[in-house]
Amino acid sequence: MYREKIKVLDCTIRDGGLINDHYFTDEFVREIYKALSKSGIDYMEMGYRASRELFPPSDYGAWKYCDDEKLKEITDGIESNLKLSIMVDSYRVKEQQFIPADESPVHMIRAATYVKYIDSSIELVNKCHDLGYETCVNIMAVSKEQEPDLVEALKQLANCPVDVVYVVDSFGALYCEQIEYLVKLYKKLLPGKEIGVHCHNNQQLAYANTIEGIIHDANYLDGSLYGIGRGPGNCPLELIIGFLKNPKFDLAPTLQAIQDHMIPMLKDIEWGYMIPYMVTGILNEHPRAAIAMRKTKDKDKYAEFYKKLYEEAIS
Amino acid sequence: MYREKIKVLDCTIRDGGLINDHYFTDEFVREIYKALSKSGIDYMEMGYRASRELFPPSDYGAWKYCDDEKLKEITDGIESNLKLSIMVDSYRVKEQQFIPADESPVHMIRAATYVKYIDSSIELVNKCHDLGYETCVNIMAVSKEQEPDLVEALKQLANCPVDVVYVVDSFGALYCEQIEYLVKLYKKLLPGKEIGVHCHNNQQLAYANTIEGIIHDANYLDGSLYGIGRGPGNCPLELIIGFLKNPKFDLAPTLQAIQDHMIPMLKDIEWGYMIPYMVTGILNEHPRAAIAMRKTKDKDKYAEFYKKLYEEAIS
Repeated sequence: MYREKIKVLDCTIRDGGLINDHYFTDEFVREIYKALSKSGIDYMEMGYRASRELFPPSDYGAWKYCDDEKLKEITDGIESNLKLSIMVDSYRVKEQQFIPADESPVHMIRAATYVKYIDSSIELVNKCHDLGYETCVNIMAVSKEQEPDLVEALKQLANCPVDVVYVVDSFGALYCEQIEYLVKLYKKLLPGKEIGVHCHNNQQLAYANTIEGIIHDANYLDGSLYGIGRGPGNCPLELIIGFLKNPKFDLAPTLQAIQDHMIPMLKDIEWGYMIPYMVTGILNEHPRAAIAMRKTKDKDKYAEFYKKLYEEAIS
Repeated sequence: MYREKIKVLDCTIRDGGLINDHYFTDEFVREIYKALSKSGIDYMEMGYRASRELFPPSDYGAWKYCDDEKLKEITDGIESNLKLSIMVDSYRVKEQQFIPADESPVHMIRAATYVKYIDSSIELVNKCHDLGYETCVNIMAVSKEQEPDLVEALKQLANCPVDVVYVVDSFGALYCEQIEYLVKLYKKLLPGKEIGVHCHNNQQLAYANTIEGIIHDANYLDGSLYGIGRGPGNCPLELIIGFLKNPKFDLAPTLQAIQDHMIPMLKDIEWGYMIPYMVTGILNEHPRAAIAMRKTKDKDKYAEFYKKLYEEAIS
């Protein structure tokens, strides 16, 4: 699939960090940065820029905050065309600082928001755009939104300087026909903007839905190494690279990073296809019940878990 | 998704048996039979009816042969609407016997063949149809076939009494647009026949491609419990059941069987998404190289494996 406008964004550190409170070692992040650079990936999301007031540093690793100095340390001395992005939950911003883009190692700032807090994302986009950053809005949990509310949010985004707006399947609940519908809706209501897709893998559909996005002209694609991410994780980056035939991409360094870093990491933290997350996906629910049950001795009692959630869903 | 004509076929024992030479215990097969019966699945494929001359009984378990008496033993005393199917490689038939359908516990006989041996499948279909069985042809490795050869094979099948013809993505190489193309081609050339889809999960597309089949009117869907099957395995049956909303299906017994039987089995045999099979999938190759490397100490040297196969593919 050759389409020059397609950009691939790796969210290994940012989304993977949701499993380990962003406690990745500097060495690990640096090795991933090197591997993605060699693979020709377009963006690497280094983590969040969260508020230290809301998220105290005693509880999280460095990638929860992504200070500019820290990012410079990691990338220093590595030849790379990789752009860096960071994510900000725009609805819980406190003292976070953003220096002008030309003084920062960060290229793109991505505002994560729910539809009802769309105003906060627009404020963040306006501010970051003025500072010279590329900007992006990820509207989370779209599978739970009412269409008129979503349409209203998209119309507001159309009038702000945001560059990219993402369809985000937070609950891994969407099927390909719904991805098609949403990408077309976003395209129609956001003329001149790029559309992205960020899919979760609850039902093993993250990659298929990403391809569906490509077919309908989404040009920004999120993935992570071996699909790392909370619960079932994300679209595996290596599958996206295997699909795109633009010669700027090289699959081999991506596979090398998986064998060197991701497979060993599976011994310490779990992610991937698991029935409890499949259940929250088919029920279009937040994975919190699955996360909780995976920490108990009943972590493999799938049938009971399903019956409980199903009863709740129809009650 | 409610469409009454849709039939779900579980191939846990047949395709899963390719990992362990069909050495499943009677108790295991009986428990799976019970669970599938409770879940409202339409067909259970019990294994192959292979030739004992070609596949000596010293090397294989009972499900390589699926003798009628053995099947009766397993299903005896269990209340069920589940139909039984068995697979026969029609291009390597020797002394295998088929008694009249009304004396056998088997309802459907599925002929597996390659395009070039399509004649052998027609001969088997004619014979089994005359004996009163439902019949089916699974054309394997279709991603490697030349279209004129495939068209010729389908035209021949159109004139035989086969009930169902499957699009089989043996190498896990097909994308949704190719599934759409093939299902439409089969429908067009096989008027009055049902079309099935059997997908392998090399690229995590087995379920998505099964949905794609449904969208284009394939009514026979193959899956296996927790996706068991050689290498990356098959479309997970539980995902199909989660998708189909016909109330005859009940997801809970399927999930119970996964927790009771499939998760424990993963300690002894491996299946699921693995990079070497992803590589053979994207290169549209038989998984034999991946199977071989997973048995060596280099089983996680993905980058080298990819480079070697890629070089072979472009040489």
